[in-house]
Amino acid sequence: RTLRIGLIPGDGIGREVIPAGRRILESLPSSLNLKFNFVDLEAGYDTFKKTGTALPDKTVETLKKECDGALFGAVSSPSTKVAGYSSPIVALRKKLDLYANVRPVKTTLGSSNGNPIDLVIVRENTEDLYVKEEKTYEGPDGKVAEAIKRISERASSRISTIAGEIALRRQKIRSAAPTSIRDQPMVTITHKSNVLSQTDGLFRETARKALAADKFSSVLVEEQIVDSMVYKLFRQPEYYDVIVAPNLYGDILSDGAAALVGSLGLVPSANVGDNFAIGEPCHGSAPDIEGQNIANPIATLRSVALMLEFLGEEAAAAKIYAAVDGNLDAAKFLSPDMGGKATTTEVLDDVLKRL
Amino acid sequence: RTLRIGLIPGDGIGREVIPAGRRILESLPSSLNLKFNFVDLEAGYDTFKKTGTALPDKTVETLKKECDGALFGAVSSPSTKVAGYSSPIVALRKKLDLYANVRPVKTTLGSSNGNPIDLVIVRENTEDLYVKEEKTYEGPDGKVAEAIKRISERASSRISTIAGEIALRRQKIRSAAPTSIRDQPMVTITHKSNVLSQTDGLFRETARKALAADKFSSVLVEEQIVDSMVYKLFRQPEYYDVIVAPNLYGDILSDGAAALVGSLGLVPSANVGDNFAIGEPCHGSAPDIEGQNIANPIATLRSVALMLEFLGEEAAAAKIYAAVDGNLDAAKFLSPDMGGKATTTEVLDDVLKRL
Ligand SMILES: CC(C)[C@H](C(=O)O)[C@@H](O)C(=O)O
Ligand SMILES: CC(C)[C@H](C(=O)O)[C@@H](O)C(=O)O
Repeated sequence: RTLRIGLIPGDGIGREVIPAGRRILESLPSSLNLKFNFVDLEAGYDTFKKTGTALPDKTVETLKKECDGALFGAVSSPSTKVAGYSSPIVALRKKLDLYANVRPVKTTLGSSNGNPIDLVIVRENTEDLYVKEEKTYEGPDGKVAEAIKRISERASSRISTIAGEIALRRQKIRSAAPTSIRDQPMVTITHKSNVLSQTDGLFRETARKALAADKFSSVLVEEQIVDSMVYKLFRQPEYYDVIVAPNLYGDILSDGAAALVGSLGLVPSANVGDNFAIGEPCHGSAPDIEGQNIANPIATLRSVALMLEFLGEEAAAAKIYAAVDGNLDAAKFLSPDMGGKATTTEVLDDVLKRL
Repeated sequence: RTLRIGLIPGDGIGREVIPAGRRILESLPSSLNLKFNFVDLEAGYDTFKKTGTALPDKTVETLKKECDGALFGAVSSPSTKVAGYSSPIVALRKKLDLYANVRPVKTTLGSSNGNPIDLVIVRENTEDLYVKEEKTYEGPDGKVAEAIKRISERASSRISTIAGEIALRRQKIRSAAPTSIRDQPMVTITHKSNVLSQTDGLFRETARKALAADKFSSVLVEEQIVDSMVYKLFRQPEYYDVIVAPNLYGDILSDGAAALVGSLGLVPSANVGDNFAIGEPCHGSAPDIEGQNIANPIATLRSVALMLEFLGEEAAAAKIYAAVDGNLDAAKFLSPDMGGKATTTEVLDDVLKRL
């Protein structure tokens, strides 16, 4: 099988980690019978400054018409408001209907300093406040701005279903590993329906309904108000398995979870739709370390694996995960965010050696 | 001076901790020349079940007409949607225009296991998604619900001003203490203007403007996107001084910060308006431990102190803070959430002895 992958480095360290992602795909063992070809695509703040748009139509069209999947690096935001600029990744998620943002957070031997954490945040990726329908008007005491938070039954249902499926899939993988700490798959629904009874109430009810389907009968379903969720996530992260959340809470929770495993530089994500997946490291464009070859490529390498998983290439994904875990457990080539001294290239080379 | 204080225990352990709050006020040394009288008021889910409203008019009217301040315990939320029920504390904050929710989070010798944390979250308390303007309609693919997130220049400006004032006040107290780790007051503005350019953009700009006032010239002003803020809060909490945030982010951040100091049972808050303050522990009604006399009263005792501070009684507040710190540092009478075995009453008695 040959997969065509769009490469969208974006800004800052996106330009250093996406090439690492390409390299690992090119280095997969030929026994997997997988071939890749690549197409370079533009998006980001630099693209905006050059062309007036942060997400050229060509990028969207090429992804839609030619590609099976993609890797997205990171984009910088202007530090003050710039007319016409709008985040290309948010737009891309919507334009390709990549309705699930899947963010696994996991300790390895090398990155744990307590109980092992192995959870995944399944974040709704198309609506909530991210519809970006805003307006501003003059009130009696100055300006007033409003934004719409939109929650639909349809989006809440499909994100909950994919969360349930991920819980089952994880359980299957775990039950093959004798050291598993958890014996029942679990999904925790996050919301704030004590304040937002209609919107978050709809999310909660719909999630409950979707997860009550027969195929999820082995899945334990719980819920947690978002503020308590952050509290509990920090107090007993080892408790959680799959966390499903509306867009904004998912955004916040995944950064919180990343903090627990030592560095955002470790945490991958995949933007997943019915027939497409974009791998994307959770970290940003990090202009402060740009161009120094010290960005941690692990988040991107894991995002490559995650993309492959959702494209149905689980064996290839497993190879990458194992190589990355090997690098972290050995703890010989770690980038500065992990307390090491290795360059981006050295970390990558060490992972490639372990493939 | 005689202060009249409304007591609103609410549900669950609210009924165990609010009496502790009353006791400490009654036990303040007479040298302070402060007298209190109390009025018992109703609110909460039990009140709703009894009377059909979670916040009786009488409670609001009595607070407005007769009281100088109040203590609020906690309320339970129904576990499924109940028609007509709506959170009384959210309503109270709006009805009394208590526009700032001030939540200090601080380690003591006894509760620190790393660098000392001493920060305060100043949460806007009247708008954002908490305006609770929601609607539901039938879309082409099922139900759709929308909520309004409203951010005004007026509310953003006054919350930022109070945040700046708190930063200056903290600096004054710190400079009297020789062990201070920070020499410049700092305010960190939290927002998500990379997605919500109008609403959070307005919050950010207005906060910048308010904090650029001459009287804040010694205050360092920074900003942080909310997801990174959660990440950084967990990675280097000792860095922060005052964090100012719109309502919902403030809600989430304060639970996150509470996790860092070991227990929500330690974290107080005050709902502050121009002439009124309600002390309120950050924890909930905790029905699981209700009636066992094991709830941690510390969050309430500190909330009493915080209320007194905002009513201009700083000397009385300082006495309570010192007595609470003494209890925590000695670590002899700690409640179960802190790993101890002391009852609510025993913790309270130990604090009272140290007054
Ligand atoms: C850059 C920003 C728009 C984005 C988001 O909020 O989704 C980022 O924080 C993320 O989590 O991918
Ligand atoms: C109970 C709930 C409505 C409340 C809030 O969201 O403000 C609580 O979480 C708090 O932080 O005081």
